[in-house]
Amino acid sequence: MKSFELRYAYTHLYFGLNAVEKIRNHLNSVERVTIATGKQSARVSGALKDVETILRDLEIEYEVFDKIKANPTVEIADDLAKVVWENGSDCIIAIGGGSVIDTAKVSSCIALSGGKAEEYLKGRKAKRYLPLLAINLTHGTGSEIDKFAVLTHEREKIGISIRYPDFSFDDPKYTLTLPKEQSIYTTIDAFFHAYEAVTAKTTNPFVETLVFECARIIGENLPKEQKLEEKYNLLYASMIAGIALDMSPAHIVHAIEHALSGINPKLAHGCGLALIGPRAIYWIHKHSENSAKILRCLVGRDVSSAEEAEKIFREFLNSIGFNERLSDYIGRDDFKDVEKIVFGPLKYLLNRIDFEFTREMLYDILERSL
Amino acid sequence: MKSFELRYAYTHLYFGLNAVEKIRNHLNSVERVTIATGKQSARVSGALKDVETILRDLEIEYEVFDKIKANPTVEIADDLAKVVWENGSDCIIAIGGGSVIDTAKVSSCIALSGGKAEEYLKGRKAKRYLPLLAINLTHGTGSEIDKFAVLTHEREKIGISIRYPDFSFDDPKYTLTLPKEQSIYTTIDAFFHAYEAVTAKTTNPFVETLVFECARIIGENLPKEQKLEEKYNLLYASMIAGIALDMSPAHIVHAIEHALSGINPKLAHGCGLALIGPRAIYWIHKHSENSAKILRCLVGRDVSSAEEAEKIFREFLNSIGFNERLSDYIGRDDFKDVEKIVFGPLKYLLNRIDFEFTREMLYDILERSL
Repeated sequence: MKSFELRYAYTHLYFGLNAVEKIRNHLNSVERVTIATGKQSARVSGALKDVETILRDLEIEYEVFDKIKANPTVEIADDLAKVVWENGSDCIIAIGGGSVIDTAKVSSCIALSGGKAEEYLKGRKAKRYLPLLAINLTHGTGSEIDKFAVLTHEREKIGISIRYPDFSFDDPKYTLTLPKEQSIYTTIDAFFHAYEAVTAKTTNPFVETLVFECARIIGENLPKEQKLEEKYNLLYASMIAGIALDMSPAHIVHAIEHALSGINPKLAHGCGLALIGPRAIYWIHKHSENSAKILRCLVGRDVSSAEEAEKIFREFLNSIGFNERLSDYIGRDDFKDVEKIVFGPLKYLLNRIDFEFTREMLYDILERSL
Repeated sequence: MKSFELRYAYTHLYFGLNAVEKIRNHLNSVERVTIATGKQSARVSGALKDVETILRDLEIEYEVFDKIKANPTVEIADDLAKVVWENGSDCIIAIGGGSVIDTAKVSSCIALSGGKAEEYLKGRKAKRYLPLLAINLTHGTGSEIDKFAVLTHEREKIGISIRYPDFSFDDPKYTLTLPKEQSIYTTIDAFFHAYEAVTAKTTNPFVETLVFECARIIGENLPKEQKLEEKYNLLYASMIAGIALDMSPAHIVHAIEHALSGINPKLAHGCGLALIGPRAIYWIHKHSENSAKILRCLVGRDVSSAEEAEKIFREFLNSIGFNERLSDYIGRDDFKDVEKIVFGPLKYLLNRIDFEFTREMLYDILERSL
């Protein structure tokens, strides 16, 4: 398991065991730090302790803001920004998965450029932002290497292109403590970053190179017992899917899922993707040649018809122990709200594919995922 | 054939048909430009004309320095730097293959930081360098996306890590006019960037992802008639091999070749690699598992023993029309000189592999390539 560094776009990424030690190289003139995190994983994984040890060792003052939850709201980003600003921190160290890193991205902008998170969701651009170091604790988000952030505003989840982390740290050992279901959810998130990137209009050869490898690695490693090597591989797969997503963003699967988990914040993002995934794949597969190619990499055999694509993906989910249904989270009563969001504020995501995505397709996907 | 942009390390790359049009976006405050190029390919390919049209259109003054040849010397880099400095150019636009881009990298440093090219080869670091825009005309160099430059000083070719181009442009149409043999040479260069990157100690999963794809593309496209689509694919393969090389640099094949073409500057770099390649592969294959993996991607079938690896690579070269021998360029009388260079100034390249490369191995490679 090799350690390596990768500079993609404006992020300098450290990948591998004990990657977080490299954080020392980037805290030279730093006097005060705000650590942004949630209640659980940063502690359970040991990442928070490792960072605190380094900060104390370097005699850097720090405070821990640990209020970030899954599906984070604009209010949390505003709160974090206020703490960072009042504290006069020189940088933010985000320790967590996508929710934490995304929140910290937005707060790092507010801390130096003012305004409210809601305004950034609506298009406000940051003139300045505070340095952001991201320690990623999941193998799904891609947020450690992409420019996106997703926040919830009044039950609506909105994704924006905002900034890259300056330095990111992917250490597989921190993902060993992920609960099994979280491990599945986050990997499915990575898979759909790959799947949507390569079936979007904006796909290109570099995206294809990365996503086919990502799918192959997920297909090989997710069904296995999750030891350090599998975690290393899944974290790598997730990271390259993050680059693919950054170059060719997600579309209908993420659009529908954002609507769902906006309506029910208890629905984990990756779980939502897995719930609607098989039938969403059915529709995308009909229109994109790359769907067959990436599914072939995932399951190791040829996939021809859309029906078969849906079926094999459902089987794959079952094989890794995913058996939830959309009706565990969302009922038919909510379908109208989903439609309103997908064909309202999220409509721009539907333009990223080569075919017209209709309301009938949406209802079909929801109905068959119940 | 998709056009796309990729930001890797400190280079912003534009890839695809008419990529060079994007140069307009990066000449806003530019008043004077030095175009660095050779006598031939920039004109024959049409790239020089395209750039001149844009510069005239933007009313930017420019001059053309067209004295760069294959295996460029430190003197040429010094000459270019002097012209750039005297002219007070705001940037260098390099139009050519590796020789041109490498020279421009070094000259861009000298122009703002002073000194001589020779000093930079010996470790001098540039404090400042002029913006560099690189229009790549080959599908082999990788120099448009990596930090390396190779120059010749008194018959010795020396490679250094110096700087990335700021903006690079890979347009496949400019490679359509490459003579057939140049097309082979430069692709073999790309292949050995990939092969050496992945068999070096420093290989990592990202390098592997890129080089296996690179080899697959070369194996599929190089034997075909070279139309625009094949050129697009080979240019892409070369570019990703450039990233792989940047992360995990070349070792013994490049070391030996640099010695050879330092001794006989008429030997094209890619030709030199092809000449010694099969037997060099024999030795590397014995010690690196990745050798079998990348060769499998190149030829589409399993390769087990080192003997077989040598044989199939020799057959691949024959199949694409490469039939030259080392004795066309170098005789046994030169072997001592090759040894002196490889085990002298280039010895550091030999530490990049997991096994001890001996003088016996070197003589074996040279002898069997005659």
